[in-house]
Amino acid sequence: MDFDENNGSTVIKRNTEYKPNKNWRNLLIGRPLSTADAPHQTIGKLLGLAVFSSDAMSSVAYAPQEMLLILAAAGVASFHISIPLAMAICGLLIILTLSYEQTIHAYPSGGGAYIVARDNLGELPAQTAAAALLTDYILTVSVSISSGVAQLVSAFPALITYKVWIAVALVFFVMLINLRGVKESGITFAIPTYFFIIMMYVTIVIGLIRVISGTLHPVVGAPQDILMLNETLQPITLFLILKAFSSGTTALTGVEAISNGITAFKEPRSKNAGRTLIIMAVILGSMMLGITYLAHMVGATPSEEETVISQIARTVFDNRGVFYLGTIAATMVILVMAANTAFADFPRLSAIAATDGFLPRQFTYRGSRLVYSRGIVALAIVASILIIVTQASVSRLIPLYAIGVFLSFTLSQTGMARRWWKSGKLGLEESKVERGSTLKFDKGWKFKMFVNSLGALVTGMVMMVFAITKFKDGAWFVVVLTPILVFTFSSIHRHYMKVAADLTLDNYVAPNRIVRQRVIMPIGGVHKSTLAALRYAKTLSDDITAVHVSTDPIETKKVQEKWDLWGDGYRLVVLDSPYRLFVEPLLEYIEELDESKAPNEIISIVVPQFIPKHIWNIWLHTNTADTLRRVLLYRKDIVIMEVPYQVD
Amino acid sequence: MDFDENNGSTVIKRNTEYKPNKNWRNLLIGRPLSTADAPHQTIGKLLGLAVFSSDAMSSVAYAPQEMLLILAAAGVASFHISIPLAMAICGLLIILTLSYEQTIHAYPSGGGAYIVARDNLGELPAQTAAAALLTDYILTVSVSISSGVAQLVSAFPALITYKVWIAVALVFFVMLINLRGVKESGITFAIPTYFFIIMMYVTIVIGLIRVISGTLHPVVGAPQDILMLNETLQPITLFLILKAFSSGTTALTGVEAISNGITAFKEPRSKNAGRTLIIMAVILGSMMLGITYLAHMVGATPSEEETVISQIARTVFDNRGVFYLGTIAATMVILVMAANTAFADFPRLSAIAATDGFLPRQFTYRGSRLVYSRGIVALAIVASILIIVTQASVSRLIPLYAIGVFLSFTLSQTGMARRWWKSGKLGLEESKVERGSTLKFDKGWKFKMFVNSLGALVTGMVMMVFAITKFKDGAWFVVVLTPILVFTFSSIHRHYMKVAADLTLDNYVAPNRIVRQRVIMPIGGVHKSTLAALRYAKTLSDDITAVHVSTDPIETKKVQEKWDLWGDGYRLVVLDSPYRLFVEPLLEYIEELDESKAPNEIISIVVPQFIPKHIWNIWLHTNTADTLRRVLLYRKDIVIMEVPYQVD
Repeated sequence: MDFDENNGSTVIKRNTEYKPNKNWRNLLIGRPLSTADAPHQTIGKLLGLAVFSSDAMSSVAYAPQEMLLILAAAGVASFHISIPLAMAICGLLIILTLSYEQTIHAYPSGGGAYIVARDNLGELPAQTAAAALLTDYILTVSVSISSGVAQLVSAFPALITYKVWIAVALVFFVMLINLRGVKESGITFAIPTYFFIIMMYVTIVIGLIRVISGTLHPVVGAPQDILMLNETLQPITLFLILKAFSSGTTALTGVEAISNGITAFKEPRSKNAGRTLIIMAVILGSMMLGITYLAHMVGATPSEEETVISQIARTVFDNRGVFYLGTIAATMVILVMAANTAFADFPRLSAIAATDGFLPRQFTYRGSRLVYSRGIVALAIVASILIIVTQASVSRLIPLYAIGVFLSFTLSQTGMARRWWKSGKLGLEESKVERGSTLKFDKGWKFKMFVNSLGALVTGMVMMVFAITKFKDGAWFVVVLTPILVFTFSSIHRHYMKVAADLTLDNYVAPNRIVRQRVIMPIGGVHKSTLAALRYAKTLSDDITAVHVSTDPIETKKVQEKWDLWGDGYRLVVLDSPYRLFVEPLLEYIEELDESKAPNEIISIVVPQFIPKHIWNIWLHTNTADTLRRVLLYRKDIVIMEVPYQVD
Repeated sequence: MDFDENNGSTVIKRNTEYKPNKNWRNLLIGRPLSTADAPHQTIGKLLGLAVFSSDAMSSVAYAPQEMLLILAAAGVASFHISIPLAMAICGLLIILTLSYEQTIHAYPSGGGAYIVARDNLGELPAQTAAAALLTDYILTVSVSISSGVAQLVSAFPALITYKVWIAVALVFFVMLINLRGVKESGITFAIPTYFFIIMMYVTIVIGLIRVISGTLHPVVGAPQDILMLNETLQPITLFLILKAFSSGTTALTGVEAISNGITAFKEPRSKNAGRTLIIMAVILGSMMLGITYLAHMVGATPSEEETVISQIARTVFDNRGVFYLGTIAATMVILVMAANTAFADFPRLSAIAATDGFLPRQFTYRGSRLVYSRGIVALAIVASILIIVTQASVSRLIPLYAIGVFLSFTLSQTGMARRWWKSGKLGLEESKVERGSTLKFDKGWKFKMFVNSLGALVTGMVMMVFAITKFKDGAWFVVVLTPILVFTFSSIHRHYMKVAADLTLDNYVAPNRIVRQRVIMPIGGVHKSTLAALRYAKTLSDDITAVHVSTDPIETKKVQEKWDLWGDGYRLVVLDSPYRLFVEPLLEYIEELDESKAPNEIISIVVPQFIPKHIWNIWLHTNTADTLRRVLLYRKDIVIMEVPYQVD
C-alpha cells in the first residue's frame, strides 16, 4: 500500500493481483489471462490469406448448389444457366475486390463497414451497418456449420438422423474454442485452408482433364429428392434467373474480411492486405467457375441428402476413396473455420458498438480469457436456434443470408464514395481538415470515387434483387428485422446519452445533509434473526417501527406477545390483511409515512434476512427482502437493506 | 388506529382493508377474495356421487382399451381374456370398497392416505404416501386429458396432428378454472357426470339387446395401427396376462376420492359418504364389465387413432350420429372433469404436507382467489411436460400411473389395519387413550382389521405385479422417483426442524450493542448517484471508505480526480484488477477488514444504485449490488444496502 496524499482526499492504491480460483471453467476454457497478456503479432500474405479467407472460400461449398436448387424448379434442362450466372458473379467479385482494395488503403487501421459508415455517413447508417453485419455473422455460423454437416452426411449417410444435433454440437465446440481465446497461430489456419485449396484444385483439374479426354461420366445415382418435389415444371423466367443469381451471390460473403483485419498484416500492411485480397479473389473466382462447370458436366443435382461437392468428388475420383474423403474433410473443416471467423468478428463488432453506446455496455466486458465472452455465447445461442428451426438445411437459411452482407457492402462503398468526394473538396479548401481526421487529399479522388460508387450501386442492386426474389422464402424476416434492430440500437444510444446527462456533476448543487432517519422493520415473527436486525437498526436511529402484516390472527397474537418481551420497547404496528397480501399493505403504510416526512428525512427499511447454512436451501424460505427491494427501488429517499442472520 | 398500550411496547393495529388493484390477472382469474369468503356448503348422496366420482368412472374410457393393447401382443385371438380380467378387477373393486367404507367411518373428517398413514404409521410412511399421491395426481391429469383428446380425435380425425397441443391447452384451461377457484356448485358436476352415466348405460343396454337379438355386427374398419406393429405374435404367458391385468387396474384409480372429501357431505356424513362409495363402485364395476364385454363382441381393436369407446359407440348406434357424438362428448367431458379433481386434490395435499414441513412453505400460501395457486400452477406445468414427452399417448402414460395409486391404497389400508389393532388393544387397557386422539374402542375390531389387512395385502400385491410387469415400459421411472421424492421430503422436514431450533429465543442471550460502523462504498465512477449514496452513508458513520476497482487506468485517473473534488475528504481506495475481475478483489478487501474488526463492530456496504426511469432499461446497466449481495449475504456482521438514485 502506498499512501498518496492529494489535496482533500486520501487515495490509497493497492495492487490486489487477485487471481481467480481454479474451477471447472478453467478446465473448459483455460487459466485466466491478465490484461497485459493481449497478443501483438503480425503476419505476411501467405498466412494472411489463410487467416482471412476461410469465410469467402468456403462459400463455394454451397453457392453453386443453391443456384442449381433454384433452377431445379424449371427442370434439369435449365441447369446450364448456372454457368453464365457464375460468370456474372465473378464480374461482381471483380468490382467488389477493386472497391475493397481502395478501402484497405484508405483505412490502414481496419475499415469494416461499421467504421466506414460511422466515419463518413453518420449515426443511423452506422447502426444499420451494425445490424446488417451482426445478423450476417450469425448466419455465417448457421450456414457454414449446416453446410459442413451436409458434407459429413454426404460421406456417411447413416448420420442424417443426427444432422441437427451434430450441427449444434459443432457450434458449441467452436464457441468453447473461442471462449478459450486460443492465440491462434497462423499455422493452425494455414494447414486446413491450403489443404482445402489444394483439394479443390486437384478435383477441378482432374475433372477438367477427364472432360477433355472424354472419360468423365455422369454422377451414378444422383439424388432425386429435390427434383421429385417439382412435379410441374416452371418456365424459365427472368425472375427465376435472378433468384438463382441471388443464391449464387452468397459465394461473395466474406470478401470484406481482410478489410477488417488489416492491422494483423506485416508492414507495409495496406499493400500486403491489398495483394492478399486480390489473390483471394482470384482463387475464389476460379473455384466458383470450376465447381459450377464440373457440377454441370457430371449432371450433379441439388439435394438435402448429398451435396454437389460430394457428387462431383465421387465422380471425378471414380469412387469414395481417399481422395474423395480428403475433399469432403477439407470442405467440412474450412466451413467450420468460416464459422470460427464469425465467432471472432461478432463479439469484436458488438464490443465496438457497445463502446459507442449502441449495444448494452456488458458487451464490452472481456472475460477471464481476454475475449468478449458475452458476445461469443450470444452468437452461439442465436446461431443454434436458427439451425434447429431450419433443421440445419442450408437451402432454408440462404434466403436470410446475403441481404445483410450486401447491405453492409453498399453502406461501406457509399461511405467510401462520400469520403473521396470530401477528399476532393479538400483539395479546393486545404484549410478545412478536421482535427484528428485521417482524411487526406488524394489526387486520384475522381477515379476512386467512381470505383466505389459503382461498387455501391451494384451491391445495392444485388441486395434489392435478393430481397425481392427471396422475399417469400425468408428474406422478409431480415427485411423486417433490420429496421427493428436499428431502432433498438438507437433507443439504447438515446438511453445512455440521457443517463450520462442526468448523472453529470456539471451544475450540481449538493443537497442538505440528512438530519433524520426513520427505520421501518417488517417482521414475520420474532426470533433470533429479527433481533439481529433490531440490533443493527438501533445503530441507525432511535425512531424504529416494527411492522407485522397479519394474515393469521393466531400468528399475530404470538408475534405481539413475543415483541412485548423482546422488542426493547420499540413500536410494533400490525397491519391487517384480509386478502392475504403481504407487500401491498406494507407499501401503503410506507407511502403514508413517505408523504408526511420532512425534506431532509430518509426512510430506511431494515429487513431481517434468515440465511440457511446451505445456499440451496434458500428456496425453502420466502424471500421478502427481494420482493420489497424490487418495488421500493423506484421510490425516492427510501433505502432498503437486509441484515443477514446466518445459521451456524 | 387504536392505540393499545401493553407493558413495554406500543402495539398499533390497523385494518388496511387493502384491496389489490384491478389488473390483467383479474380478467383471467377474477376479483380477489377475502379470507372470510371461504365457502361452507354440504351436499347429499346424489350430488356427492357427481362431485367425487369423475376420476373413478372416467377410467372406463381407457382401462378396457389398455388391457386389449397388452393382449394385442399375442394377437386378436387372445382378446377374450379381457373378460375374466375385468371380472377379477371387479373383485378387487369389492375388496377396496369394503376397505374404504371402513376408513370413511373411522375418519369422518376426511381420511386420505396421507392422513391415515401419518396418524397410524408415522413420518416415513406418511412421506411415502405423499410422494405416491402427488405423482398420482399429476398422472391423473396427464392420462385423463390425453384420453379425453383421444376421444375427440376419434370423432374428428383431422385434429390428430394437433393432439398434443389440444391436450396442453386443455390442461391450461383447467388450470385457469382452478386459479379462479370457482365455487363449484354440485350442479356443475352433476349434469356432465349423470350425462356420462346415462350415455354409458344407453350404449351398454342397446349393445346387449343387439347382442341378444343377433343384430350387432363387428366394427367397420377397425383401426389396425397397433396390431400391425406386432409382426410376430407372442405366446399367451402368465406374464402377459398379469401385465394386461395391471393395465386394467387403472380402472380403480379414483376410488379413494370420497374418503378424502367426507366433510362435504350432509349429516350423517360418514353414512352418506359410505353409501355413495358403494353406489359408485356398483356403477363403475358394471360399466367396466359392460364396456369390456361389448368391446369383445364388436371386435374393437386398441389403437392410437380411434378409441375403443368410439368403436363401440359407432357400432352400437350404427353410425356417427347424435348418439355417437353424445357418447364421445360425455366421455371427453368426464375425463376433463377427472383432471379437474386432481387440480383440487394436488394443491390441497401439498398445502397439508407443507404445513407439516415436508414441502416448501410457499405451498401453504393461498392466492388472491383463496386457492393454493402455486400448487395449481406446478401441477399444470409438470402434467403438460408429461403430455408433451409422451405425445399425449395414453398407452405410454399408463405404465407410470397405477403404482402410486396402489402404493397409497396399501399404505392407507395398512394404516387402518394398524388402527384397528390399536383400537382392539384399547379395549384391554381403556385408560391408555391418547389425549386428542379420535381412536375409540370398536367391538368389531377383529373383523375390520381383517378387511383392511386383506385390502392392504391385495393392493400391495397388485402394486408389485404392476411394477414388475410394466417395469421396462416406464414403471421404472416411478420406482426410482418415489424414493427420491421421499428423501427430498424428509430432507426438507429436517431443514425446517433445524431452522426452528436455531432461531428460537429459548435460552437466548442478547449480544452487546453495536458500537462502531464502518462503511464501505464501492464506486464505478463519481456522479450524482455516487454522491446520493455518500450523503446517506454519512448518516451511518464517519468511517467511510470509497473503493474503486480499477480495470482501466484512464478511467481510474478520472475517478480519482473527481473524488478529490466531490468526495468531501473521505478515503478512496483503488484496487488494481489485472484480470478485469470486479467482485473478487472487492471481496478480498472486505475480508481483510473483516478480520481486523472488533466484536461489536459491523461493516455496512453502501452501494450506489442507479435506477433508470423505465424499469425495462435496467438490463442496460451492470447490476453490481445484486452480485455483491449474493456473495456477502453469507458473511457474518456485514450488511449490504443500496441507495437508489432515480432519474427524473
